[in-house]
Amino acid sequence: MKPAKPTTPKGTRDYTPSMMLKRNFIIGHIKEVFEKYGFMPLETPAMENLSVLMGKYGEEGDQLLYKILNQADFLSKVETSDIEKGSKHLALKISEKGLRYDLTVPFARFVVMNQNDLAFPFKRYQIQPVWRGDAPQKGRYREFYQCDADVVGTESLICEAEIILMMHEVLGNRLKIKDYAIKMNNRKILAGIAETVGAEGKEAELCVAIDKLDKIGKEKVLNELKERGFTDTNLEKLLPIFNLPANNQEKIDFLEKFLENSTIGKQGIEEVKKVLKYLQSFSSTLTFEVEIDITLARGLSYYTGAIFEVKVRNSAIGSISGGGRYDNLTGTFGLEGVAGVGFSFGLDRIYDVMEEQSLFPSQTQSTTKIMLSNFDSEAEAYTLPILKKLRDEGIKAEIYPQSSKLDKQLKYANKKQIPFVVLIGSEEMSSGIFTLKNMQEGTQQKLNIEEIIKQLAI
Amino acid sequence: MKPAKPTTPKGTRDYTPSMMLKRNFIIGHIKEVFEKYGFMPLETPAMENLSVLMGKYGEEGDQLLYKILNQADFLSKVETSDIEKGSKHLALKISEKGLRYDLTVPFARFVVMNQNDLAFPFKRYQIQPVWRGDAPQKGRYREFYQCDADVVGTESLICEAEIILMMHEVLGNRLKIKDYAIKMNNRKILAGIAETVGAEGKEAELCVAIDKLDKIGKEKVLNELKERGFTDTNLEKLLPIFNLPANNQEKIDFLEKFLENSTIGKQGIEEVKKVLKYLQSFSSTLTFEVEIDITLARGLSYYTGAIFEVKVRNSAIGSISGGGRYDNLTGTFGLEGVAGVGFSFGLDRIYDVMEEQSLFPSQTQSTTKIMLSNFDSEAEAYTLPILKKLRDEGIKAEIYPQSSKLDKQLKYANKKQIPFVVLIGSEEMSSGIFTLKNMQEGTQQKLNIEEIIKQLAI
Repeated sequence: MKPAKPTTPKGTRDYTPSMMLKRNFIIGHIKEVFEKYGFMPLETPAMENLSVLMGKYGEEGDQLLYKILNQADFLSKVETSDIEKGSKHLALKISEKGLRYDLTVPFARFVVMNQNDLAFPFKRYQIQPVWRGDAPQKGRYREFYQCDADVVGTESLICEAEIILMMHEVLGNRLKIKDYAIKMNNRKILAGIAETVGAEGKEAELCVAIDKLDKIGKEKVLNELKERGFTDTNLEKLLPIFNLPANNQEKIDFLEKFLENSTIGKQGIEEVKKVLKYLQSFSSTLTFEVEIDITLARGLSYYTGAIFEVKVRNSAIGSISGGGRYDNLTGTFGLEGVAGVGFSFGLDRIYDVMEEQSLFPSQTQSTTKIMLSNFDSEAEAYTLPILKKLRDEGIKAEIYPQSSKLDKQLKYANKKQIPFVVLIGSEEMSSGIFTLKNMQEGTQQKLNIEEIIKQLAI
Repeated sequence: MKPAKPTTPKGTRDYTPSMMLKRNFIIGHIKEVFEKYGFMPLETPAMENLSVLMGKYGEEGDQLLYKILNQADFLSKVETSDIEKGSKHLALKISEKGLRYDLTVPFARFVVMNQNDLAFPFKRYQIQPVWRGDAPQKGRYREFYQCDADVVGTESLICEAEIILMMHEVLGNRLKIKDYAIKMNNRKILAGIAETVGAEGKEAELCVAIDKLDKIGKEKVLNELKERGFTDTNLEKLLPIFNLPANNQEKIDFLEKFLENSTIGKQGIEEVKKVLKYLQSFSSTLTFEVEIDITLARGLSYYTGAIFEVKVRNSAIGSISGGGRYDNLTGTFGLEGVAGVGFSFGLDRIYDVMEEQSLFPSQTQSTTKIMLSNFDSEAEAYTLPILKKLRDEGIKAEIYPQSSKLDKQLKYANKKQIPFVVLIGSEEMSSGIFTLKNMQEGTQQKLNIEEIIKQLAI
């Protein structure tokens, strides 16, 4: 009996060569930009101790963590009572390690473990997969990549400005994504609004509701806020916020007045202004606009200052990048006072946007640039030095490894999307003039090897 | 109470920025060479179904596999009797997935799943971590990287020759590793020797024993073979094998005579000769020697033709690369007749050899090329456009993010091994002439920004 056809686990997938070439194209640009801005690479193990991971992502996160069964006789320390207490209890008796759930907690652990050796402010980037036992759905996988960059150990708002520059350089300048908006908010502005309307400390509730304004409209937002404990007086004071001007400067003018009695609110506006001023300093001819958006929250409990998000307009693919400032990255591991700011590119979503907008360049179709034919052992022996010559010139080249019929060889080249094929038969061997087939255009030229090398350099 | 300092799981480690830069240097060259020879990238998920992994690595391997606890209520399908049967039985009741143990089995699974879409011969490379629950020791980790390249779907010996070329190009030409030997053997020669001495099918025992010749001497090898069932007659016939000539051609001449009555043995010699001939065809001025070594086995059960290994001479770090030909990659998944040949670079060991031989170039010390000082807000505003200019030139540059004392800033640059620092104070701002400090040489020059850019390009 034939064994059942093997599969990948639900919610995971192989990255085929054609996907890899496109992913590497994106990752290559992200890395280059991170490094150009002074970030250094870091990688942490896939497995972390559960003591490091548990309790960091809320109760739901703890459930979604992949736990690794202890080796060998994992039952030896288990009592009958442990089994009676059920799966949730037992899991922690028989597993000590889990798979990384994000890149932030491992980074915090790393900073704490290496605090005496690091150069602070410490700027690191990290591009690795993470694993979450979520229900898989379109565009949501159980294994997916995160591309994070963080600076810790400084409160300088230059870092915020540089995050915006990096977002723009990767998404706009390099990947050529069209029609995206970089949105910025500040937790302190949200706190100031809550304080001003008399609902101090309720900025989280405020955000969750206001965030839905586009979808459900003003009346429903107000109802939701009421349910969340906002009084009629609170809501009345809040009303002007629903009619914010569109322009950044007008928004700032409005908020400065609206928040004039809130210390924290005014601080938030000052920060936003300073980030915009730094951007101006970097370049007075910035070709992109940052949009102040006071409904932007992104897991508010975490952020304490700036909050960022990049969205593609008129696309179902939501946020493709985001981040913000936090006060206390490492407190949970006993190291207080490590503030920082970080952000992340959503690799899979960027990939989808680039497919949607047809942005992948042709060099992401194939790695091999040219294939040499193989008709018989004599031609093969003649061809190998030519193959070596091409490779010595740095050209990605291969020979069809065995003598075969032409159409079989061309089919292979086509399937692998190799753009050029050289045919070498007895006539070519005696003349040293070869037939170079352009597989995309279906044309062919008669050239010697030097001319072929020149042709490929174009 | 302060929480305990967090740790990484036993046998795993963080790759710090300085390690990452060196690792990326090695990986970059490996990737470039793989692609130059027509191999395309592939990545598979960290998690595989246990049905894919189990039974592929022997009983010990099954024990060393990391198994992932099923999500949610994993006990729901467990009977009391399952618990009574012990850990080994229970493990498979409560976990369905495991972590990748090597890159070969996932590759075989991929080929079977995608057999109708792939261009055969299919050439893929794969550089990813694998996990094994081995006892950690110096140089052996529970998470480590493999860098594999395989061609499947062809029996062409050009592939064997190209493997040798790739080993040489990566290790010798690019990484500049000194004093390594590329060794080659062939399973068929081993089978032929066993047949010739009257111990047909016992090539595995033969190899294990002969492999120890250097360490334990001829007498002890003969004793071991006796214990493994070789008769005195067998051993007498084997004696000439202990006095093989050193030179490849003489070795071949000797073996051709020795194996003249073994069909499989002669086939093995023909293959070795053909691989050497292909190497000659690629280049008649090969600057390296392949060494025929009939004691080379490398897990013989797996290989059916050529066997390769690269060892660094006079070093405790054993093999840094190896591979061979196999007949039946995918048979275990029900797809017969997929032959191929593959090899692998040992990233961690190559790293250690390069440290031993001091081969990492200076650009693997740091990513940032130049740091700009930050003395006060006026200088900061003046410096940001300069920073942008440097980055626009493609130079990896950063500003110290906050105003600080000079020695604090220089200490940061030193710790991060940034080779150049530019000092920008009030005098520099008025003249446009800056002080460029060379941090390695301790020298400094007065230059304008254009001159600095030129200086950095050197």
